[in-house]
Amino acid sequence: MPPPTATLSVPSSSSPSLFPLSSFSSSNNPHVSSFCPAPSTLPKFPSLSKPQTPLRNLTPLSAVSIEKETLISERPHTFLREADGGDDGSVRSRFQRMILEAQESVCAALEAVDGAGKFKEDAWTRPGGGGGISRVLQDGAVFEKAGVNISVVYGVMPPEAYRAAKAAADDQKPGPVPFFAAGISSVLHPKNPFAPTLHFNYRYFETDAPKDAPGAPRQWWFGGGTDLTPAYIFEEDVKHFHSIQKKACDKFDPSFYPRFKKWCDDYFYIKHRGERRGLGGIFFDDLNDYDQEMLLSFATECANSVVPAYIPIVEKRKDTPFNESQKAWQQLRRGRYVEFNLVYDRGTTFGLKTGGRIESILVSLPLSARWEYDHKPEEGSEEWKLLDACINPKEWI
Amino acid sequence: MPPPTATLSVPSSSSPSLFPLSSFSSSNNPHVSSFCPAPSTLPKFPSLSKPQTPLRNLTPLSAVSIEKETLISERPHTFLREADGGDDGSVRSRFQRMILEAQESVCAALEAVDGAGKFKEDAWTRPGGGGGISRVLQDGAVFEKAGVNISVVYGVMPPEAYRAAKAAADDQKPGPVPFFAAGISSVLHPKNPFAPTLHFNYRYFETDAPKDAPGAPRQWWFGGGTDLTPAYIFEEDVKHFHSIQKKACDKFDPSFYPRFKKWCDDYFYIKHRGERRGLGGIFFDDLNDYDQEMLLSFATECANSVVPAYIPIVEKRKDTPFNESQKAWQQLRRGRYVEFNLVYDRGTTFGLKTGGRIESILVSLPLSARWEYDHKPEEGSEEWKLLDACINPKEWI
Repeated sequence: MPPPTATLSVPSSSSPSLFPLSSFSSSNNPHVSSFCPAPSTLPKFPSLSKPQTPLRNLTPLSAVSIEKETLISERPHTFLREADGGDDGSVRSRFQRMILEAQESVCAALEAVDGAGKFKEDAWTRPGGGGGISRVLQDGAVFEKAGVNISVVYGVMPPEAYRAAKAAADDQKPGPVPFFAAGISSVLHPKNPFAPTLHFNYRYFETDAPKDAPGAPRQWWFGGGTDLTPAYIFEEDVKHFHSIQKKACDKFDPSFYPRFKKWCDDYFYIKHRGERRGLGGIFFDDLNDYDQEMLLSFATECANSVVPAYIPIVEKRKDTPFNESQKAWQQLRRGRYVEFNLVYDRGTTFGLKTGGRIESILVSLPLSARWEYDHKPEEGSEEWKLLDACINPKEWI
Repeated sequence: MPPPTATLSVPSSSSPSLFPLSSFSSSNNPHVSSFCPAPSTLPKFPSLSKPQTPLRNLTPLSAVSIEKETLISERPHTFLREADGGDDGSVRSRFQRMILEAQESVCAALEAVDGAGKFKEDAWTRPGGGGGISRVLQDGAVFEKAGVNISVVYGVMPPEAYRAAKAAADDQKPGPVPFFAAGISSVLHPKNPFAPTLHFNYRYFETDAPKDAPGAPRQWWFGGGTDLTPAYIFEEDVKHFHSIQKKACDKFDPSFYPRFKKWCDDYFYIKHRGERRGLGGIFFDDLNDYDQEMLLSFATECANSVVPAYIPIVEKRKDTPFNESQKAWQQLRRGRYVEFNLVYDRGTTFGLKTGGRIESILVSLPLSARWEYDHKPEEGSEEWKLLDACINPKEWI
């Protein structure tokens, strides 16, 4: 064959970037440093009865930018700018501390339950502040692939994405809006078909006033959720999982669990299949109509609930014997996970379109997945029951 | 667990629909009978240096509709409306005959090389004319999954998609435009990692005059292509494949092969990876600036070239011994195929958004695929050479 005409341009580990925080992603190309604002800058998620407009249609991606990241050999104490007080008592600072601690505790719990696999860590910063830490455990004893990533971003978004700017008179053209975003995001795929996949993601978003409108109000909001994707239903597991979510919600507002449970069922919807990807949990976005301190505590409570909600289920199911056909069914459901993430998930599709670090974004995809033509589980079978619960979301508690 | 709250709504084999013809797809939901016009109704494909606008942004899908299909037990002689002369000498009729014959001959050649697997056939019609035949061979001796589908559609598209309408004065609002579309589409995934995946797709599109502008000209165009996606490069195979494409092109115009080869490299581009999904072939769309008879002959020649271009390669590679790591590499490349089809392929994304028959649309996905975190082939290895050729498209002949 002819000699290669150029060096391979595959992403190198010297450029780890942002993870599929639903919120954002950075460019892997030093010449095109683009950035996308959080989905939370957009109108609240439509109900399923309305057609869902792809997010990419709504936001002028090219107008958003952050700096190129640099790999660092050791994780820093903070990713905050000095002007933000480094590690003071601000919400930015406390949210960052929360996601760093959550990453630590979740990874420690996962390594403990895996027993063999260890997380590989990549950390990076940006010249003007911000950065992130990606952790991936692949091919462990229990986990096929587990990613737990955090990131902190200082960026600039177009005024169109800033709600306060929309209220301005037509002849006023506010300038770009500086913003701060931080989040933790994770997808955990176990090997055993009876141990469910877990996803969680908590994020905080804050704008400064637009540069040309110093008097305009600062905006902030929280988003996130935790959801369970089993291939087989063990009712006690799903009840346990949802109970922990409800308990976390109920500490703050009795309306949270029913509202965020439904939001989760609506969000993780594979429209072309008429199925949810899994059995849900909680999901919320654009949340700012409560006290800010209360929502910070709520996000913290949710992140702290990941280990007690998930680890006992994995402990219980990781060694359950299974046969080839059960593994194949898990693989088919993993195919659905791929379909949701590549076609609908806002963080993933945003990341792909805006040049995020692909290996970080797609660590959410399973190690392997399967598509059989016209596969239909036998009515009444365990596989059929799972599919039914994905088509007709249930109240688990 | 609680009893199911509703009957499973998974697609049943009683509603086979259109295949991932890049052109179109029908609804699987009897209450929402939507249809999308061919990509060929849109501006010619942009070069890679320009950002590629997703097609879904450009076309008001809700405004396009065809009737719901009905499964039939035997394939009919023709899918054409009687008013079209049934089986006369029109381009519609001759294109239909061509794709029916191509489906027959390709499936026969595939069954012969497979030796064990047989195609399962689903055929359907629509009340006002049109229909299709889906054929899928799964888990054969040689092929993991092979789909060869044809369809004929009578539909109505919004005037915005009709080029002649665009030239009308602003105060003239032309009505919906009736159209006819027919095509053959196929994806063939062999089991052996040394035997390449093949995709081909040829389609013909024709409009009537808009209903409120009977004098407006009738539009027609051809689209299609054949491309090869190996996991390993055998230079003689790739040269053979491209030579057959060039030979088919050269019979009609010496500019065709270089132009359509580049178009193919540009189209099958996984932007977020900076890679093509494979080693190309030919691709064209919106082709109407040549004699219509000449283009019908050209499309026929291309379809007839599928068997001589592909079958000898499969014959040569289907029994090559391979190890686990070579199979895993094939699976990783299948993951790229999934990424391209779900994120970029216009036929697939259109079909998913407009409610096409999912099992037909996604038969293009491989039986299994794999995603490893940050996988990098060793420089100079056979895997590295394939990746290099996907990043830096080569002239093979």
